[in-house]
Amino acid sequence: MPHITLNSDEPGIRGLFRFRPETARPLNELVEVLLRGPSSLTPGERELIAAYVSALNECRYCRSSHSAYAAAQLPGGMALVEQVRADAGSAPISAKLKALLKIAAAVQQSGLAVSEDDVAAARAASATDLEIHDTVLIAAAFCMFNRYVDGLATIAPDDPASYEVRAQRIVADGYLALLADHH
Amino acid sequence: MPHITLNSDEPGIRGLFRFRPETARPLNELVEVLLRGPSSLTPGERELIAAYVSALNECRYCRSSHSAYAAAQLPGGMALVEQVRADAGSAPISAKLKALLKIAAAVQQSGLAVSEDDVAAARAASATDLEIHDTVLIAAAFCMFNRYVDGLATIAPDDPASYEVRAQRIVADGYLALLADHH
Repeated sequence: MPHITLNSDEPGIRGLFRFRPETARPLNELVEVLLRGPSSLTPGERELIAAYVSALNECRYCRSSHSAYAAAQLPGGMALVEQVRADAGSAPISAKLKALLKIAAAVQQSGLAVSEDDVAAARAASATDLEIHDTVLIAAAFCMFNRYVDGLATIAPDDPASYEVRAQRIVADGYLALLADHH
Repeated sequence: MPHITLNSDEPGIRGLFRFRPETARPLNELVEVLLRGPSSLTPGERELIAAYVSALNECRYCRSSHSAYAAAQLPGGMALVEQVRADAGSAPISAKLKALLKIAAAVQQSGLAVSEDDVAAARAASATDLEIHDTVLIAAAFCMFNRYVDGLATIAPDDPASYEVRAQRIVADGYLALLADHH
């Protein structure tokens, strides 16, 4: 049961968005730019970083949501997402994405844990400064979202279908359209 | 030296805002609503939560910035901020603020670390659901900002005056006005 009394029975961050629309707006604008805005990383790759960090933070709602969103936008689907979550180093993804996930895992620990070597390895695998920047900010942002969702003890549905339905809406229309459903 | 090549020599998050204005906008809108929007917590109290979490994350730039912003808006000034950072439990602040800082410290560890007891204690000290919500989100947001600033190894000025000058602008005009200076 959530720690506070929400004004709907929507699960996870959705109930928090409805409870506090003033903060929901910039939070959704941030995630729309970061995960779906113009970028040399695909939306599927960026959702994979979000799912990976959410798994490291053991946030069931965000891990399930962003795994479904990543799976819907990656050729390897959910099998690939699960492989990355289990062992990113051996998963069939590019050397660049592996190096970026290593940076994301460091950020999940602490900003101070990102080493010169981590960044040099990403650059050696052809990551650009903007890709490194966005990876750090995506990982940092999910350290926020995960804490927000679990710090208020929101509910995570068990049924994978509920995340898959939402994935189709995100892929088609984006985060701001989903937010508009709240009004 | 920052991990990536920025397009200015501005310190801390300021250089990141100039490098990536697309994400700077929602990040500043979030912090403006959370720390300065309508609330039963004063801006000084909310900046204190931000400074406290930034200190726990050992983020020198954010700790120095938000300590200066809190000090400029609290009757106890920097002496009070330093007391809270050293030992919030014995600092001369309200029981409600102490209980909210305890929740913020749990969020800094993990969303899953916030206990029913932490929330019950805040409620017993008259904290409202909205105050508990905003405390969790402020603490979570600074777990993002701290990781963003340090994950890219930005520079934190040593001179306290540089943070105090900025504090005066924040108090007078807010975060979005400061962002506008970038353009």
